Amino acid sequence: MDTSADATPAAGIDLDSGLLSPVRAGTPVEPVTGDRAWLQAMLDAEAGLARAQARLGTVPWAAAAAIGRLAQAERLDLVSLARQGREAANPVVGLVRALTAVVAAETPEAAEYVHRGSTSQDVLDTGAMLVAQRAIRVILPDLDRTLVALAALADAHRDTAMAGRTLALHAVPTTFGLKAAGWYELVRTARERLAALAEGGLPVQLGGAAGTLAGYLEYARGVAEGPAGRADYARRLTETYAAEVGLAVPVLPWHVLRTPIADLGAACALLTGALGKIAVDVQSLGRTEVGELAEPAVAGRGRSSAMPHKRNPVLATLIRSAALQVPVLSAGLAQCLIAEDERSAGAWHAEWQLLRECLRLAGGAAHLAAELTEGLEVRPERMRANLELTAGQLVSERIAAVLAPLLGRTTAQELLNQAAATAARDGRTLGEVLGGLPEVRAELTEAALAELLDPTRYTGVAAALAVRATRPSDPA
Amino acid sequence: MDTSADATPAAGIDLDSGLLSPVRAGTPVEPVTGDRAWLQAMLDAEAGLARAQARLGTVPWAAAAAIGRLAQAERLDLVSLARQGREAANPVVGLVRALTAVVAAETPEAAEYVHRGSTSQDVLDTGAMLVAQRAIRVILPDLDRTLVALAALADAHRDTAMAGRTLALHAVPTTFGLKAAGWYELVRTARERLAALAEGGLPVQLGGAAGTLAGYLEYARGVAEGPAGRADYARRLTETYAAEVGLAVPVLPWHVLRTPIADLGAACALLTGALGKIAVDVQSLGRTEVGELAEPAVAGRGRSSAMPHKRNPVLATLIRSAALQVPVLSAGLAQCLIAEDERSAGAWHAEWQLLRECLRLAGGAAHLAAELTEGLEVRPERMRANLELTAGQLVSERIAAVLAPLLGRTTAQELLNQAAATAARDGRTLGEVLGGLPEVRAELTEAALAELLDPTRYTGVAAALAVRATRPSDPA
Amino acid sequence: MDTSADATPAAGIDLDSGLLSPVRAGTPVEPVTGDRAWLQAMLDAEAGLARAQARLGTVPWAAAAAIGRLAQAERLDLVSLARQGREAANPVVGLVRALTAVVAAETPEAAEYVHRGSTSQDVLDTGAMLVAQRAIRVILPDLDRTLVALAALADAHRDTAMAGRTLALHAVPTTFGLKAAGWYELVRTARERLAALAEGGLPVQLGGAAGTLAGYLEYARGVAEGPAGRADYARRLTETYAAEVGLAVPVLPWHVLRTPIADLGAACALLTGALGKIAVDVQSLGRTEVGELAEPAVAGRGRSSAMPHKRNPVLATLIRSAALQVPVLSAGLAQCLIAEDERSAGAWHAEWQLLRECLRLAGGAAHLAAELTEGLEVRPERMRANLELTAGQLVSERIAAVLAPLLGRTTAQELLNQAAATAARDGRTLGEVLGGLPEVRAELTEAALAELLDPTRYTGVAAALAVRATRPSDPA
Amino acid sequence: MDTSADATPAAGIDLDSGLLSPVRAGTPVEPVTGDRAWLQAMLDAEAGLARAQARLGTVPWAAAAAIGRLAQAERLDLVSLARQGREAANPVVGLVRALTAVVAAETPEAAEYVHRGSTSQDVLDTGAMLVAQRAIRVILPDLDRTLVALAALADAHRDTAMAGRTLALHAVPTTFGLKAAGWYELVRTARERLAALAEGGLPVQLGGAAGTLAGYLEYARGVAEGPAGRADYARRLTETYAAEVGLAVPVLPWHVLRTPIADLGAACALLTGALGKIAVDVQSLGRTEVGELAEPAVAGRGRSSAMPHKRNPVLATLIRSAALQVPVLSAGLAQCLIAEDERSAGAWHAEWQLLRECLRLAGGAAHLAAELTEGLEVRPERMRANLELTAGQLVSERIAAVLAPLLGRTTAQELLNQAAATAARDGRTLGEVLGGLPEVRAELTEAALAELLDPTRYTGVAAALAVRATRPSDPA
Repeated sequence: MDTSADATPAAGIDLDSGLLSPVRAGTPVEPVTGDRAWLQAMLDAEAGLARAQARLGTVPWAAAAAIGRLAQAERLDLVSLARQGREAANPVVGLVRALTAVVAAETPEAAEYVHRGSTSQDVLDTGAMLVAQRAIRVILPDLDRTLVALAALADAHRDTAMAGRTLALHAVPTTFGLKAAGWYELVRTARERLAALAEGGLPVQLGGAAGTLAGYLEYARGVAEGPAGRADYARRLTETYAAEVGLAVPVLPWHVLRTPIADLGAACALLTGALGKIAVDVQSLGRTEVGELAEPAVAGRGRSSAMPHKRNPVLATLIRSAALQVPVLSAGLAQCLIAEDERSAGAWHAEWQLLRECLRLAGGAAHLAAELTEGLEVRPERMRANLELTAGQLVSERIAAVLAPLLGRTTAQELLNQAAATAARDGRTLGEVLGGLPEVRAELTEAALAELLDPTRYTGVAAALAVRATRPSDPA
Repeated sequence: MDTSADATPAAGIDLDSGLLSPVRAGTPVEPVTGDRAWLQAMLDAEAGLARAQARLGTVPWAAAAAIGRLAQAERLDLVSLARQGREAANPVVGLVRALTAVVAAETPEAAEYVHRGSTSQDVLDTGAMLVAQRAIRVILPDLDRTLVALAALADAHRDTAMAGRTLALHAVPTTFGLKAAGWYELVRTARERLAALAEGGLPVQLGGAAGTLAGYLEYARGVAEGPAGRADYARRLTETYAAEVGLAVPVLPWHVLRTPIADLGAACALLTGALGKIAVDVQSLGRTEVGELAEPAVAGRGRSSAMPHKRNPVLATLIRSAALQVPVLSAGLAQCLIAEDERSAGAWHAEWQLLRECLRLAGGAAHLAAELTEGLEVRPERMRANLELTAGQLVSERIAAVLAPLLGRTTAQELLNQAAATAARDGRTLGEVLGGLPEVRAELTEAALAELLDPTRYTGVAAALAVRATRPSDPA
Repeated sequence: MDTSADATPAAGIDLDSGLLSPVRAGTPVEPVTGDRAWLQAMLDAEAGLARAQARLGTVPWAAAAAIGRLAQAERLDLVSLARQGREAANPVVGLVRALTAVVAAETPEAAEYVHRGSTSQDVLDTGAMLVAQRAIRVILPDLDRTLVALAALADAHRDTAMAGRTLALHAVPTTFGLKAAGWYELVRTARERLAALAEGGLPVQLGGAAGTLAGYLEYARGVAEGPAGRADYARRLTETYAAEVGLAVPVLPWHVLRTPIADLGAACALLTGALGKIAVDVQSLGRTEVGELAEPAVAGRGRSSAMPHKRNPVLATLIRSAALQVPVLSAGLAQCLIAEDERSAGAWHAEWQLLRECLRLAGGAAHLAAELTEGLEVRPERMRANLELTAGQLVSERIAAVLAPLLGRTTAQELLNQAAATAARDGRTLGEVLGGLPEVRAELTEAALAELLDPTRYTGVAAALAVRATRPSDPA
Repeated sequence: MDTSADATPAAGIDLDSGLLSPVRAGTPVEPVTGDRAWLQAMLDAEAGLARAQARLGTVPWAAAAAIGRLAQAERLDLVSLARQGREAANPVVGLVRALTAVVAAETPEAAEYVHRGSTSQDVLDTGAMLVAQRAIRVILPDLDRTLVALAALADAHRDTAMAGRTLALHAVPTTFGLKAAGWYELVRTARERLAALAEGGLPVQLGGAAGTLAGYLEYARGVAEGPAGRADYARRLTETYAAEVGLAVPVLPWHVLRTPIADLGAACALLTGALGKIAVDVQSLGRTEVGELAEPAVAGRGRSSAMPHKRNPVLATLIRSAALQVPVLSAGLAQCLIAEDERSAGAWHAEWQLLRECLRLAGGAAHLAAELTEGLEVRPERMRANLELTAGQLVSERIAAVLAPLLGRTTAQELLNQAAATAARDGRTLGEVLGGLPEVRAELTEAALAELLDPTRYTGVAAALAVRATRPSDPA
């Protein structure tokens, strides 16, 4: 195979513009997760390592500075590195060669300090953690926007009655505020998980060829002597490296202890699941027949090429497309926990693309969710109208509960069942049928019955829950 | 379809004995996750609900007591309930009918208080959380045994040198203690996650038909009046119910906010991944040619039907079989986060069996892991012998590092590459070849070279890491 | 661990009644996939092997007959075998021991011919294929019922106009017949795949300890001599065995060539996907606001415990619950293609439960689908009414196409866009707005416009497609 | 969000070079599956549609010719189209706009015939099928190379004895030829599936907005009149379109009948599973302690950055990395079978990237597999040496079989068990121990025992199977 380093991206070279993944095309997460961003993150790892070694006196400061200055993605040929990756089963071998060449050309004496004592996985894993951290940092603001929007919806619509739907049918009333509060709670939890990862759950990788740091120590002769001295040096090198690149300190080198990767996958799946729940609700409630919600109206958005009247729920559609993908991608990452030996011959390599896709889809979905929730069009009048569709049956649970103590539970239930059947058969409201029954009239005045039948008065504690869930610091 | 309640399990009825899942057959997790255990957990939910309502004055104490006394799985026909589940898409409708009949037969006046104001999902979800909690509680002791065993291995073998292997080949030396410490760290983290779920991450479910608690409030007329009174009652009912059954209090009813389910799936996947990593290492190191580890020798265990000499790594095999299944099952649970409306018409129903399998496989794997790690046979002499297989090449990284400052990095690397090739070609040790090179002899005495070539002296800080990772409270 | 063979299933033993999997509880696939059915299938494999060896003269006929007579699941202790499975990592070692004991007790001289020259995997894999074949055979009739029902719906409703919906919104008209024909085509394809597997895609397993048949040949000394004689014997034994148990002849022993397992998983996923598509359509079209379809009304079915008016789409819900599970289970099976060596230490063992669940869920879903499609309630009047909901906009694509040649494409499109916007804003029909535009009136008479605006006249070739797709032998 | 069409890919734009997916970086599948290739395939669909309409007389030939000439990916701005995809939830709306502009600029009168009567999904799905077909066409030659190489290995090593390994331990002997034949059979089947898809399983998509072809018919007024005329036109348009682009004719428009997509996923999973099996075997047998196989030695390949002696199995590692990813990606595709309505609001959109990754990973793995199998280094002398590792125990199955008729099965088995234990304990060969037992000496001469103990003589019909499986047309 021809993977010569001088191969240049010709006109026909294929690159990924996001054409097949509109959910993230052009969103903030894209530039921090693309190939160039990964390359830069790995270069940042190399630079951080050199600086850390300089701080501990095992690399000259001038060399570390030169490496830091020259470790820029623009200086390397991305496509060539990608292809060289096939020779070593990872892109770091080529990267080290290319970076060394760049350094050697400008600062020859610094070249031998590039990647000193290190191993490919230390660089790639640290780079991956940096990419994840940067991705999360652009995702969080979109989640914060989403949370603000959802809290506002929950508050504004705490009392906006609508049909609660179970198994695709009207069940009993609820309020839109409570629905929005549920969305809030899902996103809040997912945000919390991602934030926790970014703030301490993403460790630097530093183990050397087999996780013993022997290579690093070999270059620290004179500085780190004796078991205690060596252990101390290893500890300090890890801590300094972590501080330099802004990642956490791991308990152990984690070449084959892949919890951080599995955690990222699970956190992304939780987030896209949360946003996917919002998306399907928006779609369900936006159906032509339902019409209770609509996506924000934006000029040119959601247009069909053939049908001028449509305003497609494109944001929800794309969010849902992400939510359908991330769980299986995340499963792929969880499988890679089964990493044999001191470095897996395949499980490690399977993680990279899966992880990147998880981050990208999560980030794209978050960006669209901010826009969706901020501009969501809520139509209380349609909610109100739909509440009448079952002609009172929506509150039959309530009538049964009221009549049970008066008539006995079984009798009350049977009476309701019959009344509901009669109403459905004759096209009458439940109220009309019940109002004509002597057993009912004996117990309830017309006014009492009317009030019981008002769906907007049977929303339980929806409003209180909506408020409490979205104002967690408020002692509701 | 014939699902009449009086169908009895005939001789031909099919039940699951664990025949296809030996990893958990007969292990402690089995009795707490079987159909009978789920049924009992749902009955416990019904009983707990009645007690909670009694505490709040909306159900008579005598009724709650009767329900609690009679809510016993043995009183119900499990197979009949299972089949009735098809009529309602869940087993709770039949359960309520059957429980009500049992209560009515013994304490007629209590019958109307069964499932009062409730909904199927409140009972099934609460039951599922109880099952999960009970499963975790039997899993944790097995993990604790495993952790103790692994810490002991890490300590005992902190200095037991062995080949570190990457991409299936010898790389540089490590120690078995560090490997065991890595296993420990994986299991420790997974244990932490499961324990956190059991101690506060598994919420009671209480929402009524659509999450507003309206049904419960309807039966609390007189006790809970006015918005504030109703909100207070709802809050207290949830808290009391949670206290009664021993689960956490959720922020909101979570009929369609499925974070707890996704969390359980992710925690099980993390655990089986951790144990799966141990399993593949045991298998790799136990291969006939390697022989560094063997499973505990137990009479009758691991015997082939045809080959008397084999002692198959059956524990590792079964653990790995679980580790291969749980990630995809967990992905199925993560997908179910996309739950439309106030109750999903399918996503909820897809969770039950997937969740149970996750718990069972995790529990079975944990039980076997305790046995595997406690009895693991470690063979330092084989580790030592295998270290010699590459005739010194295992430490070539070290020699390169030592010679680099003396000869220059490139020259040193080339010299090593050539020496390694020569040694391999001529069937000589790397030491012999190097010892014959004037450049090397000029820099290193024979003794110095011999020491550098000793693989047991090139284990970096493996010992220190092994000790520190398994004694977290120790300021190493 | 106590796994003694005499452990008996006590009262507390946990068995799987289907409580958590109502989609298959009590359906025809259950008895042919349960633990007892698997045990019997493995015994059938043992019996078939003995008969095949008898036919080739390497086992006495009397012994084969005795083994066949005694290889009955009722004679063995299922729970004990399941637990013994942990000792060998599979249930066959215990099964052979138990079967040998049963045979020895009744026909001592036959005992030594049990499992002669064989290996666990030959028996378990052959048993699995038998289970799969039997499962498919009970699934096919349900699919045939479904296909008949769908073809009838397609034919009856070929011209029943309804809204075609894309991205959750009304798009252009279609007919219910075409929708039903699409369902038919999906199920037809899935049925074809399963039938093809049952009729030649499920091979017998016969390889001996490592796939060379050496063990079988060792017991054929005198009968099979010399390379050619041995090859001939091996071929004939495989063919005879296959004929005895009614399975296909494989190209090679497939201990680690797991195509048949992956194929079964993929076929089940295709089937549940097809049925899942039907299910979500039934749910969507059955929503309270839509009301175009309803599940068959069956007394007691689909009742909510609290809401007497609901008739939940329980069949569709349970089918969808299966469709959500099978893809990930099938992925688990596909992973197990990566089976190392001559028998995998874990990947093989991970298949059994996953495969069984795939078959069960597919079978349960098929059974429910037959019932759903046979009794589906179609409401043309609701379809007709919903066609009017967009007040003509549903056919705007058509108007644009008609006006384009007359006014130019861009002008026509803009005119339509504006008219659609005006109509929506003013609450008028598209016809009213268009009828008031001089450009339109200049080109189209009132009658022509009315005809163009009739949604039932804009269903393209839906009827022809519906008929053609469901009468494949008809030269439509 | 800024998705203006004039956004140009700046220096910082992120593109996918394959950096994270070395298994396919620079392989033949890459240029036919990249974003540019997808864009071109969709343009080919537009051009083919115009030509088909021209053949049927509903588009002028000159217009179709102009569209065909101008439908070139280089003429469009890929990144801009990708970003516009967010506005419509798919890239086709922007593509049609851009293509129309290109055509209008050069041949104004042809512009109105672009995408005439069509819908986004017709173009994207047809484009996807073209991409899949082109991908398969570059994959098949690599599989053919692989099959030739494997057949040669099977033939050359039909009698090369090696240890058969089960559950990670030596079991009984086999031959490397049989192992290679197993690999052949797996790849052969997978190749067959892919080829069948490319030759008739990939249908053109043509349905218009909701699958009725109404839009196409609207533009065929005068040509297609009356139900029969319209049905005939629709049929001919589909067939002509299929012929123009070189795809199959579907039974029905398949907007929501996603069998072709699920089939592609399953076929890719089968292929990567087959190649993954080869990969893990190469890794296992190439372990330092085993040394029976090695990857082709290529200058610069498989080098560690730190360890000069290593020649890492990079091809196998990358193949395995693909095999770990595709099953879960394929599961994602299978889930998308659950596509509601006439076009799913999310499931369709989730397919694109998953499908592309399946094709890419399969193609990359196939390319590497060709190289791996063609250059695989087989070391019969190491296989021979390893056969001796268990000092005769590898053939204990055979001895038991031979002694059983002489001593009785149970006695023979016990004798073997004891002899095996004695040999292992005393470090003697099984032959030595057995030769010292009077029971054995009474039955077997020294020569007979020696022959029985020769592992190379206990390979069953491995050679015959190897030959037969790889020469299917040969009546073996």
